[in-house]
Formats: sequence, structure tokens, C-alpha cells
Amino acid sequence: MADEKGFTLWFTGLSGAGKTTISKIVEEQLRERGSRVEVLDGDDVRQNLCAGLGFSPEDRRENVRRIAWVADILSRNDVITFAAAVSPYRTMREEARARMGNRFVEVYVRASVDECERRDVKGLYQRARAGEIQGFTGVSDPYEEPTSPELLLDTETETVEQSADKLIAYVEERLAGARPAAATSS
Amino acid sequence: MADEKGFTLWFTGLSGAGKTTISKIVEEQLRERGSRVEVLDGDDVRQNLCAGLGFSPEDRRENVRRIAWVADILSRNDVITFAAAVSPYRTMREEARARMGNRFVEVYVRASVDECERRDVKGLYQRARAGEIQGFTGVSDPYEEPTSPELLLDTETETVEQSADKLIAYVEERLAGARPAAATSS
Repeated sequence: MADEKGFTLWFTGLSGAGKTTISKIVEEQLRERGSRVEVLDGDDVRQNLCAGLGFSPEDRRENVRRIAWVADILSRNDVITFAAAVSPYRTMREEARARMGNRFVEVYVRASVDECERRDVKGLYQRARAGEIQGFTGVSDPYEEPTSPELLLDTETETVEQSADKLIAYVEERLAGARPAAATSS
Repeated sequence: MADEKGFTLWFTGLSGAGKTTISKIVEEQLRERGSRVEVLDGDDVRQNLCAGLGFSPEDRRENVRRIAWVADILSRNDVITFAAAVSPYRTMREEARARMGNRFVEVYVRASVDECERRDVKGLYQRARAGEIQGFTGVSDPYEEPTSPELLLDTETETVEQSADKLIAYVEERLAGARPAAATSS
């Protein structure tokens, strides 16, 4: 068995909910503390691992499947892995959980469609409403909320800093719990 | 900069030259010593990361590119990563080397086509000669030999154990050299 020092923080939530923003803050803090950290960024993965895949349900599933495969390898080698894909369907997240077992940490970054649309940092919601983007999660494609995520970060009621602090606290607790086990692993 | 404890042993050579056999022996020994080791097995990668890719030159390139992308992430996180794809074209290996820099270790497992065909463990050469497999490296698709691999394991003149011992010696030397550097990395 591998150490328990590695795990995957699997961010899920609508575009604009704050997944990337929060993950960047936490990533930075963990790096400063000397943790092994990798971020499987959606765009980076699409470019390097998933060239040719689009946004159909089947292609989205395949995209998430590949992220989960890499996250599994990294996390079992003691790397704290961030996966920040929308991952809108419950079954695709459950598949990732089944692969990683208790190394899978579902982090639901929650904000309503209305709120995300109000922010619309990248102008994607406007384009989706205008019909320029097909199958956009929350507008023309469903987002299935997690039923029992390990962590709920509600960015409609919390500041980004509050959300990041909650996540850091979770990670610290988990790492503290892992320390004795790490010495006896093979 | 990452530690120097991680690197990628990039096996290249004809089907049947002994890449998998040697890598399995070395992998086992390294695991027993407590090293972090991952094997990016060709079949496993094709199934999980490269579903839909075939054996055309462009698909082969894309396959190797993805292996290199994952090997890069793993090796920079202190994992000794084995990649055991045929990787027949020089340019694809040079691309992988460019990505990983001095974490890329080219291990040429050499045996002639005649010798590999004589062994033909999986019966693939026979099928390739019969025209049942198209674009088979060494038969109907070129294999471009490495010009200056970090390590040459000639399985026509060495036993599998001799080849494995050479590789282990290389890894040990490299790990010994990395130890002082590891303490000062960030």
C-alpha cells in the first residue's frame, strides 16, 4: 500500500464558481510548505492528453476518465493532486472515486447558475445564452450536484479566502493524520 | 527546481528485444528498496489514455507524446518512471527528451530484427510477415536506432540478468549523485 500522504482534491462546480481561483491559492500555500503538488488544469489536460476530444457527453466522460487516471497515479505516489474540471455528471465523479478510493476528495465549489452568470468572468455564459457555445454546463447541459462531497465551499456566502482556509484546514488535518502511517508503509 | 531523485527510464527497441522483461526485473528491485516506481506500460496507456488511437505514424506520435507528458509529471515528483513503448522514431524520442531535460534517460534495448523474429514470443512477427498486422516496426515500419542513448543494453550478447544489472548500476549511481542535491531543493 502507498502512503496516505497523497490524495486528489477533485474540484467540481460550475464554470465561474471559483474552482481555479481557490485551487491556485491553496496550491501556492501547499508548495510553500514543501508539499508535492500538481495541478491537472482542464485546458492543459485537453491540450496534452485529450487532443481531439470535444464537449459531447461521451467526450466529456473520456476527458474526466483520463484526468482521473493520471490523478490516481500521482496521488498514490504521495502527490497532492488538484483536478479542476467541471465534471458535471455524478457518474463520472463516482467512477473517479471508485478508482482512487479514499484518496479521492470531492470538493464541491458551489455557486448558483445565476451567480456564476452574474460574474461571467470569461464571458462564457453570455456566449452560451447567445447560442455560440453548445452544451454549456448550467445553461444547455446539466450540472448534477454532489450529494455528499467531502468538502462544500459555498462561494456565494463565503469569500474566496474563507473557502481557501477551509480547504487548507482539511488538507492539514488529513496530512497530520497520515504522518504516523507513512513511516510504516512499504 | 524539483529534486533529482525522479527520472524517466525511456526504453526503446523492437518488439521482443526485452524491454518489458528487463524493466520488470529492475522495477521489482527498486520497489524492494523503497523507491517510488511507476511503469507506463504500453497496453495500459493505450487503454486508458489513448483510446481511439491506432498505429499510424501520427497516432504513434500522439501515443508517445502522452506517455511523455505523464512521465514528465511523475519524474518531476521524484518518481522513477518506466516507459516501455517501442517509440520507433528518433524525433518522438527527442521530443520527449526536450520535455524532460536531464530527467530523460534513453535506454536502448537492442536486438536485431532477425533475433527478435527468431524469439517471436507473442507471434507478432509471424503475423506481420503474413500481412495480418500492418505497419509493424522492423517489418513494415522503420525503427530508427538511438544515436547516443544513455544506456545500451544489447540483449543479443548479454543475458537478461546482465542487462538488468547494468541498468540497476546506472540507477544506483544516479540516485547516489542526487542525494546531496535533494536536501537543498525547494
